[in-house]
Amino acid sequence: MRKIINVPGDFVDEVVEGMLAAHPELRAASADLRAVVRADAPRPGKVGLVTGGGSGHLPVFAGYVGRGLCDGVAIGNVFSSPSAAQVYAATEAVSGGAGVLYLYGNYGGDIYNFDLASDLARAAGIPTATVLAADDVASAGPERRSARRGVAGMVFTFKIAGAAAERGDDLATVTAIARRAGARTATLGVGLSPTILPAAGQPTFTLDEGEMEVGIGIHGEPGVHRGPLETADTIADRMLDQIVADLDLAAGQRVGVLVNGLGATPLEELYLSSATS
Amino acid sequence: MRKIINVPGDFVDEVVEGMLAAHPELRAASADLRAVVRADAPRPGKVGLVTGGGSGHLPVFAGYVGRGLCDGVAIGNVFSSPSAAQVYAATEAVSGGAGVLYLYGNYGGDIYNFDLASDLARAAGIPTATVLAADDVASAGPERRSARRGVAGMVFTFKIAGAAAERGDDLATVTAIARRAGARTATLGVGLSPTILPAAGQPTFTLDEGEMEVGIGIHGEPGVHRGPLETADTIADRMLDQIVADLDLAAGQRVGVLVNGLGATPLEELYLSSATS
Repeated sequence: MRKIINVPGDFVDEVVEGMLAAHPELRAASADLRAVVRADAPRPGKVGLVTGGGSGHLPVFAGYVGRGLCDGVAIGNVFSSPSAAQVYAATEAVSGGAGVLYLYGNYGGDIYNFDLASDLARAAGIPTATVLAADDVASAGPERRSARRGVAGMVFTFKIAGAAAERGDDLATVTAIARRAGARTATLGVGLSPTILPAAGQPTFTLDEGEMEVGIGIHGEPGVHRGPLETADTIADRMLDQIVADLDLAAGQRVGVLVNGLGATPLEELYLSSATS
Repeated sequence: MRKIINVPGDFVDEVVEGMLAAHPELRAASADLRAVVRADAPRPGKVGLVTGGGSGHLPVFAGYVGRGLCDGVAIGNVFSSPSAAQVYAATEAVSGGAGVLYLYGNYGGDIYNFDLASDLARAAGIPTATVLAADDVASAGPERRSARRGVAGMVFTFKIAGAAAERGDDLATVTAIARRAGARTATLGVGLSPTILPAAGQPTFTLDEGEMEVGIGIHGEPGVHRGPLETADTIADRMLDQIVADLDLAAGQRVGVLVNGLGATPLEELYLSSATS
């Protein structure tokens, strides 16, 4: 396991400590450091945006706390949901009186805990709304969009809903804008190597040298195609064919393109893929 | 070779095409796209900062072209110096009448070509000065500082000299500031796996699973210690002991800390290392 860590059980806590040390614009909102918010939270009259989920995906989620983005994040263990108490701690810390929007990926554990936190928030007089990111076209067909996994596409939702909240839109408006942005977003992932959980020390699946898997999930969920590694052009064509069809795009329409890796893809290969797509 | 590329020979050109497509604040200053400058270059009366070197190190070098940083970059092939013509193209494009400072790493091929470009610039009436980054403490002892390799520490020089140039300092002043920043910067690298050149398809050296190499260079130059992979705390102690001694730091002095990877280190491990250092 080629990882620079200390004790696997301390991995997430030490990552958060490092983020807080590196970014004075963030502060912890819970004693366990698993709720992190903008240092200037709460902002009176502003809709608060809270995201969260398991660790192991940086910059998702904690990297998207900032001006014009999310106000707070709840940070779970590696690939595990944060607890309802952690989500609630973030909620309370960012609540400026205009309600709080939950923006996160469509995963069962996260939904369970964010929903519980929403009950706690309601009991405390903080209205909440929820928009789930569900952008991964490989995880369910167009007739079952709401069953899709949320992956990189949620970054657009953070940015667009974050801008709406920053300019003072109310909770219903920010929620509608976030939902519309999410509904018009489609993504597809390709993996060349498996991930290794610090606690397990073993790959989550195997993929031979020279193989690629298309449609792979952010936690190594199985994709829809496995075969020999192809050129960047062919991979981009594969991805775009499916995404363009899914969004029913017509020639001349303007789109925003996000090319990202899952942590270990060199920047060069991401730029190269941008050129070919 | 787990790389998302097309033809290895097109690798660098396609990376640059992607950067230009993604960043409208940049523009090409040569037909071969290997000189890239700020879109608003030249800025009249401002000292121009030009950097450059081989490809394969993003965000070094092209990622540091922007406001308050460098004005232009010359982009070589993977781990190869740009040509003098490419450096000169960047020089000419950023020259706003106040001279141009060359800021780059201490490597023979780069020195050769930047020096040639400087001759071309002088012939064209553009004064230049040069500051070499030489921050890697593992590459030469304190008595031979000027023989050191330039690695991540040059980012501080870009930032500090870039700020001086942005506020209107003249060439002699920006040069002196860059030199002073560089002289007070020390870095050390640790590698857990070798790099693979797209054209070669083979690792540049071998490192067994579970091993680490301390003092490794940015191109895989041999380090000063190889042994079993240690914890993040132990690695940080190793690095800091050497860096603190080299800079002759005393308790209470303030320092800027940069923790970076060489392209494939997940953000989590970098933040974790920040917490432990």
